[in-house]
Amino acid sequence: MDNVKIFSLTANPSLTQEVCNILGVEQGKSEVTHFSDGEVMARSPDSVRGKTVYIIQSTATPAAERLMELLVFIDGIRNAKAKEINLVIPYYGFCRQDRVARPGEPITAKLVADLLDTVGVSRIITMDLHTPQTQGFFSCPVDDLSSIPLFGEHFRKEFASLGIKTEDVAVVSPDHGSIHRARDLASELPNSEIAIIDKRRPAPNVAEVMNIVGEVRGKHCLIVDDIIDTAGTVLACSHAILSRGALDVRVAGTHAVFSPGSAELLAQSPIVDLVVTNSIEHPKMKGVTVLSIANMIAGVIKASVEGTAVPNSWMSFY
Amino acid sequence: MDNVKIFSLTANPSLTQEVCNILGVEQGKSEVTHFSDGEVMARSPDSVRGKTVYIIQSTATPAAERLMELLVFIDGIRNAKAKEINLVIPYYGFCRQDRVARPGEPITAKLVADLLDTVGVSRIITMDLHTPQTQGFFSCPVDDLSSIPLFGEHFRKEFASLGIKTEDVAVVSPDHGSIHRARDLASELPNSEIAIIDKRRPAPNVAEVMNIVGEVRGKHCLIVDDIIDTAGTVLACSHAILSRGALDVRVAGTHAVFSPGSAELLAQSPIVDLVVTNSIEHPKMKGVTVLSIANMIAGVIKASVEGTAVPNSWMSFY
Amino acid sequence: MDNVKIFSLTANPSLTQEVCNILGVEQGKSEVTHFSDGEVMARSPDSVRGKTVYIIQSTATPAAERLMELLVFIDGIRNAKAKEINLVIPYYGFCRQDRVARPGEPITAKLVADLLDTVGVSRIITMDLHTPQTQGFFSCPVDDLSSIPLFGEHFRKEFASLGIKTEDVAVVSPDHGSIHRARDLASELPNSEIAIIDKRRPAPNVAEVMNIVGEVRGKHCLIVDDIIDTAGTVLACSHAILSRGALDVRVAGTHAVFSPGSAELLAQSPIVDLVVTNSIEHPKMKGVTVLSIANMIAGVIKASVEGTAVPNSWMSFY
Amino acid sequence: MDNVKIFSLTANPSLTQEVCNILGVEQGKSEVTHFSDGEVMARSPDSVRGKTVYIIQSTATPAAERLMELLVFIDGIRNAKAKEINLVIPYYGFCRQDRVARPGEPITAKLVADLLDTVGVSRIITMDLHTPQTQGFFSCPVDDLSSIPLFGEHFRKEFASLGIKTEDVAVVSPDHGSIHRARDLASELPNSEIAIIDKRRPAPNVAEVMNIVGEVRGKHCLIVDDIIDTAGTVLACSHAILSRGALDVRVAGTHAVFSPGSAELLAQSPIVDLVVTNSIEHPKMKGVTVLSIANMIAGVIKASVEGTAVPNSWMSFY
Amino acid sequence: MDNVKIFSLTANPSLTQEVCNILGVEQGKSEVTHFSDGEVMARSPDSVRGKTVYIIQSTATPAAERLMELLVFIDGIRNAKAKEINLVIPYYGFCRQDRVARPGEPITAKLVADLLDTVGVSRIITMDLHTPQTQGFFSCPVDDLSSIPLFGEHFRKEFASLGIKTEDVAVVSPDHGSIHRARDLASELPNSEIAIIDKRRPAPNVAEVMNIVGEVRGKHCLIVDDIIDTAGTVLACSHAILSRGALDVRVAGTHAVFSPGSAELLAQSPIVDLVVTNSIEHPKMKGVTVLSIANMIAGVIKASVEGTAVPNSWMSFY
Amino acid sequence: MDNVKIFSLTANPSLTQEVCNILGVEQGKSEVTHFSDGEVMARSPDSVRGKTVYIIQSTATPAAERLMELLVFIDGIRNAKAKEINLVIPYYGFCRQDRVARPGEPITAKLVADLLDTVGVSRIITMDLHTPQTQGFFSCPVDDLSSIPLFGEHFRKEFASLGIKTEDVAVVSPDHGSIHRARDLASELPNSEIAIIDKRRPAPNVAEVMNIVGEVRGKHCLIVDDIIDTAGTVLACSHAILSRGALDVRVAGTHAVFSPGSAELLAQSPIVDLVVTNSIEHPKMKGVTVLSIANMIAGVIKASVEGTAVPNSWMSFY
Repeated sequence: MDNVKIFSLTANPSLTQEVCNILGVEQGKSEVTHFSDGEVMARSPDSVRGKTVYIIQSTATPAAERLMELLVFIDGIRNAKAKEINLVIPYYGFCRQDRVARPGEPITAKLVADLLDTVGVSRIITMDLHTPQTQGFFSCPVDDLSSIPLFGEHFRKEFASLGIKTEDVAVVSPDHGSIHRARDLASELPNSEIAIIDKRRPAPNVAEVMNIVGEVRGKHCLIVDDIIDTAGTVLACSHAILSRGALDVRVAGTHAVFSPGSAELLAQSPIVDLVVTNSIEHPKMKGVTVLSIANMIAGVIKASVEGTAVPNSWMSFY
Repeated sequence: MDNVKIFSLTANPSLTQEVCNILGVEQGKSEVTHFSDGEVMARSPDSVRGKTVYIIQSTATPAAERLMELLVFIDGIRNAKAKEINLVIPYYGFCRQDRVARPGEPITAKLVADLLDTVGVSRIITMDLHTPQTQGFFSCPVDDLSSIPLFGEHFRKEFASLGIKTEDVAVVSPDHGSIHRARDLASELPNSEIAIIDKRRPAPNVAEVMNIVGEVRGKHCLIVDDIIDTAGTVLACSHAILSRGALDVRVAGTHAVFSPGSAELLAQSPIVDLVVTNSIEHPKMKGVTVLSIANMIAGVIKASVEGTAVPNSWMSFY
Repeated sequence: MDNVKIFSLTANPSLTQEVCNILGVEQGKSEVTHFSDGEVMARSPDSVRGKTVYIIQSTATPAAERLMELLVFIDGIRNAKAKEINLVIPYYGFCRQDRVARPGEPITAKLVADLLDTVGVSRIITMDLHTPQTQGFFSCPVDDLSSIPLFGEHFRKEFASLGIKTEDVAVVSPDHGSIHRARDLASELPNSEIAIIDKRRPAPNVAEVMNIVGEVRGKHCLIVDDIIDTAGTVLACSHAILSRGALDVRVAGTHAVFSPGSAELLAQSPIVDLVVTNSIEHPKMKGVTVLSIANMIAGVIKASVEGTAVPNSWMSFY
Repeated sequence: MDNVKIFSLTANPSLTQEVCNILGVEQGKSEVTHFSDGEVMARSPDSVRGKTVYIIQSTATPAAERLMELLVFIDGIRNAKAKEINLVIPYYGFCRQDRVARPGEPITAKLVADLLDTVGVSRIITMDLHTPQTQGFFSCPVDDLSSIPLFGEHFRKEFASLGIKTEDVAVVSPDHGSIHRARDLASELPNSEIAIIDKRRPAPNVAEVMNIVGEVRGKHCLIVDDIIDTAGTVLACSHAILSRGALDVRVAGTHAVFSPGSAELLAQSPIVDLVVTNSIEHPKMKGVTVLSIANMIAGVIKASVEGTAVPNSWMSFY
Repeated sequence: MDNVKIFSLTANPSLTQEVCNILGVEQGKSEVTHFSDGEVMARSPDSVRGKTVYIIQSTATPAAERLMELLVFIDGIRNAKAKEINLVIPYYGFCRQDRVARPGEPITAKLVADLLDTVGVSRIITMDLHTPQTQGFFSCPVDDLSSIPLFGEHFRKEFASLGIKTEDVAVVSPDHGSIHRARDLASELPNSEIAIIDKRRPAPNVAEVMNIVGEVRGKHCLIVDDIIDTAGTVLACSHAILSRGALDVRVAGTHAVFSPGSAELLAQSPIVDLVVTNSIEHPKMKGVTVLSIANMIAGVIKASVEGTAVPNSWMSFY
Repeated sequence: MDNVKIFSLTANPSLTQEVCNILGVEQGKSEVTHFSDGEVMARSPDSVRGKTVYIIQSTATPAAERLMELLVFIDGIRNAKAKEINLVIPYYGFCRQDRVARPGEPITAKLVADLLDTVGVSRIITMDLHTPQTQGFFSCPVDDLSSIPLFGEHFRKEFASLGIKTEDVAVVSPDHGSIHRARDLASELPNSEIAIIDKRRPAPNVAEVMNIVGEVRGKHCLIVDDIIDTAGTVLACSHAILSRGALDVRVAGTHAVFSPGSAELLAQSPIVDLVVTNSIEHPKMKGVTVLSIANMIAGVIKASVEGTAVPNSWMSFY
């Protein structure tokens, strides 16, 4: 690891420090400043000549600023003759605009991948991409880590400590797009069942109805999703589950986007345990448990530097 | 349209002729031959200097041959100084390998998009891409047509002629990935309902169960899918629906891949009407109705040449 | 001009409307919205298939947001099959970071040019690039307009109306980097002279001294610069000039960046007439005259569409 | 060689195994399967993270399938973060379509080189490219090995064992395009002579006549060619040589394409010894001697990994 | 042709003027100057905004200077917003270094093609490329014109005027690489025969012998080659032919490179008529007839602008 | 350094030998020859397989030839499978054409950077680029060395040996573009002052006047410039300085272009000491002191190979 430099920008300073501690590498110095008109400048005063560089930065809110900061910093690192520039983007912002949903729309998730390719990135490490097809947007190879092993371990312990048998647990997908996550998390909890929230209009122009496919009555429910944004979805799902006789509701959400207003919503929620990762850094919130992805990221960096394998279970394969 | 040349290769000769007839354009001559060792040669003896060229070819079975034929022909057209080369790929083969599902897997749908980009394609017209994210795999702009208007019109007429009210129809998605298609097709059939086949294991290591979300009992059911391959899925779904009390089953499937064995399966199926498009050309089959996409393709070509708009309803927006 | 669509985003709506009025083209509709987490979405609901598109947007404060908005909008326009995408960037933000001034620094002006190249821009129209070398950062051709003819006309009229003879005018460059602008503007004012503010330390570690090269005593002085940012430079120069016996001070500055605090500074300034262009849009300010660049931009668009020449005097040639 | 992984696909499994044995490297596992509609899937279950990968695959019949298999496998290897991907293409199929011979023809040899470049290949090792200009079609560096040292050694031994003096041998080029091969092979057989088969029409519209330039009467003749395809050429040449008084005929042909029908032709041929290499793998044929190129390939791989020189005599320089 | 601008640089001013006269287009103004240190500057003072530009320049001696002049001029034309830049390179210099003939050699013919691609050329028109594979070196489409129709017409007339029957003519290829040219030219001269000069060493380390394949005794011989460089080859061939009883010798050579010393050689040569084209411009030489390629070039430009076909006989297809 | 090969071409053989001596590396063999028509061939007979290559070549007069030689040599090195190709271009010719100064002009400094990028260069080491923005023209990272530390050391010693106190020295910039160099050099000479030659026309159409900003009377003056071309500028400046009472004049110029005629001019000049570097190699000239940049170049090569830092003071940061 002598030849490796790891940098944080403004998005994930604590996670970066954790990763450096695990790897026994001193964190590289980075400076992010702004000119009088607000234009960003980001650079490292360290020499990176001939070094293998890892930059850790989620493109979370404010996403355009964070992305620009990242692009600018990479350009400086490149000018300074790094041997190889790798990105760790724990949360890949802009990921939800991954198709043309209306005429004239951009495919922003592809566009940002192209921008990163333009500045010259060798490898990307990320987690729980919103759709698995997003990997194909990058020209460079991508390690798409899975948070499922982390959540699995957390809830196995939690249920055990509470005397809850995992056969009494139902893992719930809040929509049709997260079913694969529910299946994977259920396989971490022996004999648990899965359920799907099916939001549908019985016929066009009729109000949406929230059906639940699978049994939640008498179950300890665990909703799993990749992004907790306004928190509206998980709250609506929680209420629906509880009204169908669920014993209680827990939530596992990888990326804690927590848009304005979400904290208020969550403060009054019936959710027993809301567990997220530190892919996005934010102030401590009551009732929110944060699992660190630092070990996985450090592990992938180590394996990449040493040319060894990464456990398949760490990766998102769907 | 004077400056336009439209070519067929071996995959869609009839469709191409239809498109040319609609547009009043004489079809360009193309020659596809093989050397003694089987290597393909494809060229046009026509002059294409300064012409806007459209090549119509699905990359259907045998997919590698069809793709190579296409790449080789494009290269010759380019050498012959065409002004612009556009592809019409009614069925985009390799589309299902659109993500890394196991370690070491390719993203073939992206790879083929890159190959087409390499030979120099300006625009692509295709239909019902397997996942909407696939659009982002192409560097050039893509028109992803929707077959839903065609199916909608066909079944409105069929139900009307049979005295079936569309409010007694349930549009069925055979899995979680086609729900958007079911919703769109239902919106073409006033007051019809939708249902989803939910194949799940109640718990890990337990046999898969086929649930049906939504009501099919007493309904005329219409299964909608993008690809009819081995026909195994639609047949299993048909039996499940009928066993739950559906009155009868019809199927709308855009791309009639019809793998070996599918004809035999379909010959004994309980499906009342199996409707596909001519995105893939194949011999006439009893019990299979083929809708032509020629009008839509001709329409998009005309709009592209003349710089006018295409109806939004023709496009796949999800 | 039938085949031309002109769009504004959030930076220059008024200028765009002026340009459209001059060209007799209806302005294209653009929508700029934000998702709940602040990610930008920009698209046009208009059909642009086969159209030659011009997008007018300065990458001024907030620069990262404005740039992202632009990149995203271009991507959508490209997906919608525009024939050609041209940008009008009246003020090219990030232009001052055009070299590596300290180890590890980015060359942001080049980076942003690369990003615009990545999304697929055919031509760029801009004005008074900070350094003429910046043109070489773009892969696509650039029209770098000059504001000098506008300022020349304005001040010829102003001096005439006030009975000031241009031979009593000194055009002042506030530093060594703007001398070419001073020379050009002086050539628009018959028999005017030029002067240069020379900020130097007589020896290392000695305080900076502001010398004036050329005669300002008894002159009506006209400071010319490309960017008015904090306004600190022009104010310091104004005081220096006046203390050397200048009769009065006027300022011509192309890009009115007006960073926070500049308005307060300018409110108390001794500047008789501060003239800027509308390359950056901002609220009306007392004592600031805004010249419109709409005629020049409309002229270049017209010439580009029709394949005719643009007057050499409109261009920045240094 | 610890960091090296060597893979075979379907074309050259035995050759690959030989190469691995020579280098003392365990052959990597590769899986080539087909979906129900025939689309190919190729991947390795091994971890290749950070490895230098060599893939050995001739693009021989069925060429499109073999090429697609190769492209798809490379894409997966790339996704799996190999450090560097090198190809060994013992026989480069599509090599004969290396120019536009009729209007509208592709340059397939260039096209395939571009496709390989697109998926990201670092180096190519091949043998006896049909024309030396083909090297210029690749963007990446190419090692074009020569089979001449192998044939030289084989025939020196054979002639010696039979008591034939090499000064009684004539090396025969079957056409004007292989003269350089004949010259090179002759230089391996001391004091041998060379002859050229000159197929010409004495005047336009007159039947082709087969002349022989150089003396074959009383000679042991050795025809040398790069490709044995239908075997028609070598057989016609053999008969011509024998009818001019040659003592006997031997053939050295690098790439044993052996198109359908060639086995029958060769079974009745007067050729004493037909020697080919294992650049293309095929079942044992009576009367055909196969020389292995494994030592040369292993040697080049070793030299490339260790950064040492390869003997110039191994390379095709013309 | 209103939108077309045709420029000459220093290599082919007369040819360019001829082409412009034929097309009725006023020749564009170009300035080629040198800075005090010899660096070249080339630009046009004309406006080329939106124009389709053709630049006519052979990369003949001094080749590096001519190439640099061309690259620099193209860059300026591109900066000036031409719509499309096409090159006419009547003689493509560097063409003979088209393969790696010794270790460490460049493939200059490919390199120069890449350089032209880098500056942004849309189409190339050239003549009699040294090897047909060279077309594959260019990323853009190439029109490789053939001089054979010009030579055919010239010699049919000449032989007719002298009362020589073409059945008494032998077209001679000076080596194995020009046989296709001899065949093509013979087909322009009814009932003529062909012969090949075969330079060979009967065995390694034995002096080269010049054999003649085909009959030249009693024939009017016509040697055809693509390049007349030192003139050594054609003179040696002429003497060989005459010594074998030819009646007289004429020479058709496309590109009159005429290296230093060649004029002296040719002045004493037995060649009755040495015919070249004006692909390379040089002072009048006694005994040298120059055929103009202006009509063909003008024809291809016209066809390209109007999108019509070019006669296949004008093209080099081998 | 075992894996490093350093080559000279024709421009800097002595400098290259010095660098090799410092690094203890045997200089690689390179052959630069010309074909009979003058086309250049450059290659190395050495094996460079897997090596890190450094090529030292200024693109000085004759610039096109030197550039072509370099491009051709790089192509051969690439074909020969070098691991990485780095350039040392002590003087980057074509650097002054770095912007479009008149309509239709090329940006040659960008164009040449693109050409070097095309052939595949990893890193560039150069010195005193004419404008700092030029770094942004290269796609690969650039080390722009500064000659100031060399000049500083030289003149500190010279002044000390002559008993001249540096506080009596004025460092003079010959124009507004070299002020940063004057400032930097002054900071190497304790308490020295700086002056600027200001060439201006007091009003348009009036003769240019040469003002001097700063005090030169009674000073030992040291003019600093990046390029000494015709020597006209430094001589005019010298005379102006002396006529204003300077004690004597010395000159520090990095790149000794010395165009034809400059030697004659310099022979009669009043300059006491003209100091240049060996970035351009030329015969010894009386009165010209040459400082070697070999130590700096060797230092950067060493740091790059070993992945260590280079002193910031060695770099041009402006």
